[in-house]
Amino acid sequence: MTTSPFLGELIGTMVLLLLGNGVVANVVLKQTKGNSSGWIVITAGWAFAVTIGVFVAKAFGSVDAHLNPAVTVAFAVATDDYSHVLPYISAQLIGAFLGATLVWLQYLPHWATTPDPFDKLACFGTGPAIRSLGANFFSEALGTLVLILGLAGISSKNLGELAIGVGPYLVGVLVWSLGLSLGGTTGYAINPARDFGPRLAHTVLPVSGKGSSDWAYAWIPVAGPLAGALLGGLLIRWYAL
Amino acid sequence: MTTSPFLGELIGTMVLLLLGNGVVANVVLKQTKGNSSGWIVITAGWAFAVTIGVFVAKAFGSVDAHLNPAVTVAFAVATDDYSHVLPYISAQLIGAFLGATLVWLQYLPHWATTPDPFDKLACFGTGPAIRSLGANFFSEALGTLVLILGLAGISSKNLGELAIGVGPYLVGVLVWSLGLSLGGTTGYAINPARDFGPRLAHTVLPVSGKGSSDWAYAWIPVAGPLAGALLGGLLIRWYAL
Amino acid sequence: MTTSPFLGELIGTMVLLLLGNGVVANVVLKQTKGNSSGWIVITAGWAFAVTIGVFVAKAFGSVDAHLNPAVTVAFAVATDDYSHVLPYISAQLIGAFLGATLVWLQYLPHWATTPDPFDKLACFGTGPAIRSLGANFFSEALGTLVLILGLAGISSKNLGELAIGVGPYLVGVLVWSLGLSLGGTTGYAINPARDFGPRLAHTVLPVSGKGSSDWAYAWIPVAGPLAGALLGGLLIRWYAL
Amino acid sequence: MTTSPFLGELIGTMVLLLLGNGVVANVVLKQTKGNSSGWIVITAGWAFAVTIGVFVAKAFGSVDAHLNPAVTVAFAVATDDYSHVLPYISAQLIGAFLGATLVWLQYLPHWATTPDPFDKLACFGTGPAIRSLGANFFSEALGTLVLILGLAGISSKNLGELAIGVGPYLVGVLVWSLGLSLGGTTGYAINPARDFGPRLAHTVLPVSGKGSSDWAYAWIPVAGPLAGALLGGLLIRWYAL
Repeated sequence: MTTSPFLGELIGTMVLLLLGNGVVANVVLKQTKGNSSGWIVITAGWAFAVTIGVFVAKAFGSVDAHLNPAVTVAFAVATDDYSHVLPYISAQLIGAFLGATLVWLQYLPHWATTPDPFDKLACFGTGPAIRSLGANFFSEALGTLVLILGLAGISSKNLGELAIGVGPYLVGVLVWSLGLSLGGTTGYAINPARDFGPRLAHTVLPVSGKGSSDWAYAWIPVAGPLAGALLGGLLIRWYAL
Repeated sequence: MTTSPFLGELIGTMVLLLLGNGVVANVVLKQTKGNSSGWIVITAGWAFAVTIGVFVAKAFGSVDAHLNPAVTVAFAVATDDYSHVLPYISAQLIGAFLGATLVWLQYLPHWATTPDPFDKLACFGTGPAIRSLGANFFSEALGTLVLILGLAGISSKNLGELAIGVGPYLVGVLVWSLGLSLGGTTGYAINPARDFGPRLAHTVLPVSGKGSSDWAYAWIPVAGPLAGALLGGLLIRWYAL
Repeated sequence: MTTSPFLGELIGTMVLLLLGNGVVANVVLKQTKGNSSGWIVITAGWAFAVTIGVFVAKAFGSVDAHLNPAVTVAFAVATDDYSHVLPYISAQLIGAFLGATLVWLQYLPHWATTPDPFDKLACFGTGPAIRSLGANFFSEALGTLVLILGLAGISSKNLGELAIGVGPYLVGVLVWSLGLSLGGTTGYAINPARDFGPRLAHTVLPVSGKGSSDWAYAWIPVAGPLAGALLGGLLIRWYAL
Repeated sequence: MTTSPFLGELIGTMVLLLLGNGVVANVVLKQTKGNSSGWIVITAGWAFAVTIGVFVAKAFGSVDAHLNPAVTVAFAVATDDYSHVLPYISAQLIGAFLGATLVWLQYLPHWATTPDPFDKLACFGTGPAIRSLGANFFSEALGTLVLILGLAGISSKNLGELAIGVGPYLVGVLVWSLGLSLGGTTGYAINPARDFGPRLAHTVLPVSGKGSSDWAYAWIPVAGPLAGALLGGLLIRWYAL
């Protein structure tokens, strides 16, 4: 069998969601070993999920290892090359759905022991701390803009070629930073696939005692990140970052 | 459009304050996802804010990526070259003001839900744990001196050229260390722009239910860091660190 | 005296278990300085235990520094070279037993001050949060599969040669990630020696006030990891990761 | 003025103790911003204290950057070269005393607001969780042995030359690991200067409301680390690590 960018994006995003939503399940579901272990655990878990997802994506053939439609769109805008957009985003959505499904299986005995349906939904899609659609949209857009600028900074020509292995770690640190500092409002989706794929999984999987998938909110973690990515991509292009 | 050291210092310091004061807002404001998540979250958030701010500053054209008037002053004293002092500090102050404004927007629904005006001020400027101006001045000066010596150590000729990408991470670790170990007294401004720019933003922005901006304290996080920077710069110069 | 791969695997796994089970003892036993310090401490402790164990194993002569029969099996399957399997696994089991014995000695005064026998067993072998053998087996297999894919990613030919010293740190980050995200169900043995060696030590050592060693569960953290490792090894081979 | 190994060891150990005992003061003293923030803060603080101390020591002229008489003794035994032992240890003791004095000044308003004299002593010297001199001696010796083996691993010829800047970070990670995993019993002095210098400072400085300096315990964090260092040095020599 052969590796390919499509497979790399798919497997990498699957690992990203398995580890990313896995840490949410560990903290939020009842009777887990990490129950109620707090924001440092959530944000460290998502950070390392990105680092490991990037390494796995590269091993399976994705040189870019975007794992995120917003990143794919931003760098398409930045380089004026849209040829990867559709295949990458397709792979990312499939991978995110599969990753969310693996979280459901990994924590299988814990869904029935967790009474609150909102806690279960939190292990799939994001939700706002205070529902206020304009502010929530802004939050996701700004978080994603900083993600894109941070990625541009880490891979900047001004630095030279990064020492090998350091790049995926720094991208994890970038996402750790975004979670710690900007994630307090909407839970930092900053990635349309990260929210849409798992929310779809929440709808179709027989999760014990689940409630609404809250599709009314689902456009925010898609449109907000895309808006931030568009602006970020233009900044990279204008300033040749 | 073109990148430049001025733009790099401005955008880098803006990102530094957005991420740095962002983590304070996440921990201190009510109904956030990171509410009351503690000192490890605050200090990790500020550490990575520095790392990401440095990467972004370099991408936008600042080779030095000081993001801090105290650092600019220290290295001007160390090299006896004062040509960058005024433009860098101007850019840093503008960037810090803009970053604080973005924090206000990012957490917009949370200001009205947080009753205590002191909690709101803490998301802009620093304040002492115990008000004692001499001790507070000393705290800020010593913290900044260790910052300058740490920066001199990380970039020391005795080590050789750092592996690319490692430097900005180590500077983040340095600031993490300062926060964990020396930040317990005055909240480690160790950067005049980090305190002055956001305090000005607190005064001029219509923050819901805000109280005093405590300008009586504002000279401490300016004068203390500058004193520490002056001594640090002289040590670098005397010992050719 | 001479170093060798056997000695390296033995000493490295001994250090892994001393530091890994050491952090569990610090958090779980009573009257320790780290008592009840939570999941971030447990998972950081195991992460760095891996990093330090790998460095020590390499110094004592193990180029591979597997420290884990599942890793040894996975790379034997991947390369179709089974010559190291028996000596490495023997060394890992002996090292794990010795490391667990050192934890017992390190925390010697704390066994008598800890009343619950389950807490004491937790400082040796793993146990499930919810006992459900099928789900527990799946948890251990999936965690180990991600471990193997992550190791393949970190050492992937697509990246080039890692900057020296970075590899063992990244392997620690990988294990940190697995603990944070997937460890909430069964405590992430993901390593047959990590569970079997210490469980045997629990049985044979005169631990003050100990209870059952729960051998009924002991096949799960052996068989689950081996199943995940087998699948991971085949994926590496099929896709030439 | 000129840099030198003596000055480097002195300033580096001063910074180590300022940052290391600084984090203890932040967590243990009352009315600090980091009060009661737990073991993850203590251990991260000490880890980064080592990293920053090593960088500063190297900048001021110490190629070795031991900052610890146990490390100096171990590598003297390993290389059969005892010429550095007396000057290095003298510099380390002076630096540790000065660093402890700076912690006293940094947290000056907080000594009077902290009622318990044991809390104050904890900001200077170490103390055992359970006083049991044999077990305490063993704890310190084993922790130091792993420190020496870990240092030998990180600098092992088998790895090749570390990427520049990575070494001091890894040494910090090593000390983080030792704190998390083995520090729960005696507070991991693992460094005679780290305990003796600050304990002397506790005795001679006019710390508000201080109690006993507990000199009866003081030989443990000197003799234990030296015993572990001796064994570690012999292992390095025998096995040519």
